[in-house]
Amino acid sequence: MFLSIDGVDGGGKSTQLRLLLDHYKRQGQRVVTCRDPGSTPLGEALRELLLHSGPDRPIGPRAEMLMYMAARAQMVDEVIRPALEGGAVVVSDRFLLANLVYQGHAGGIDRDAIAAVGRLATDGVSPDKVLLLDVDPHTAAARVGPAPDRMESRGEAYRQRLREGFLEEARRDPQRVAVIDASQPIDAVHRAILAEVAAVRLG
Amino acid sequence: MFLSIDGVDGGGKSTQLRLLLDHYKRQGQRVVTCRDPGSTPLGEALRELLLHSGPDRPIGPRAEMLMYMAARAQMVDEVIRPALEGGAVVVSDRFLLANLVYQGHAGGIDRDAIAAVGRLATDGVSPDKVLLLDVDPHTAAARVGPAPDRMESRGEAYRQRLREGFLEEARRDPQRVAVIDASQPIDAVHRAILAEVAAVRLG
Repeated sequence: MFLSIDGVDGGGKSTQLRLLLDHYKRQGQRVVTCRDPGSTPLGEALRELLLHSGPDRPIGPRAEMLMYMAARAQMVDEVIRPALEGGAVVVSDRFLLANLVYQGHAGGIDRDAIAAVGRLATDGVSPDKVLLLDVDPHTAAARVGPAPDRMESRGEAYRQRLREGFLEEARRDPQRVAVIDASQPIDAVHRAILAEVAAVRLG
Repeated sequence: MFLSIDGVDGGGKSTQLRLLLDHYKRQGQRVVTCRDPGSTPLGEALRELLLHSGPDRPIGPRAEMLMYMAARAQMVDEVIRPALEGGAVVVSDRFLLANLVYQGHAGGIDRDAIAAVGRLATDGVSPDKVLLLDVDPHTAAARVGPAPDRMESRGEAYRQRLREGFLEEARRDPQRVAVIDASQPIDAVHRAILAEVAAVRLG
């Protein structure tokens, strides 16, 4: 089973990913976690370029989208597919969905064009369930604190476009994308995630 | 006018690019040269990853193709389009064609899928003429000498697939892609290039 956790920063992705990991470990289930972009030597090098390029190394929207795709392609080949074939549960911190939202809905690149590149990049490997941690932009910004990187330093109107983009993607693919109310207490969010995951297993 | 010079390494691209540049300079024509991947801070960082990643940083074929595309997208935005809008002639050492050949014909990724990503990456900016320096693999290998980088260390059968891929692309788009016999003396190749370029200007 392949799960991804997605949504704007400040939605509690890291915390929920850790709780889900602990859940599987207690069950004795082999679980592999990864983060997109990242989790391979190439992916981490691309992540560094993406998140920490300053004005002396501009990255336009199309280049940015394609670098995320390159990192993802390598992660599929090197981490996700081997783990799935070995019987592990894979939990990824973000996956393709974030590209559709950040560079598409909020970034001005045609959403369907990104989806087409995504099918090539992921070679058909797609999460069985995307856990979308939905939280209003104000709460998210307060949780993140002072803007920590290139993607998250663009203000509340931008965060609102991101949220709407994520929710629109969830409406397009409601079987796969589960919207979780991430303004709830941490334990309630975790229980909601477990319920969604259990539904996948039964399905 | 936007020109690219392409073909397998060892075909004399660098020499011919320099001669073409000198030609335009003598004419008092403003000319901008670039190399793909490269020519922007991001593109050079990606080039370094592409050409000098060892076994400790694997790059699969899809990731590789997408990194070339990212570098190219940035080069279009930062170098090529501004130069063309400013009235310069742009001469690029390689462009999209090499991706179609190296990762498509010789690399196993669907050629049309790469072309589709290419249309997105280049945002519709395409050479008015591609000067394909065609040379047999044995001659090319002898010119290159000991394999200098990751892409060129794969042997003669691989070079033969590359050559055939380039020629097939030329057959698909004969108006745009000019096949130049690069086994000729340097001056003859240069004259053949000037004839092709003159035909573009008249066209």
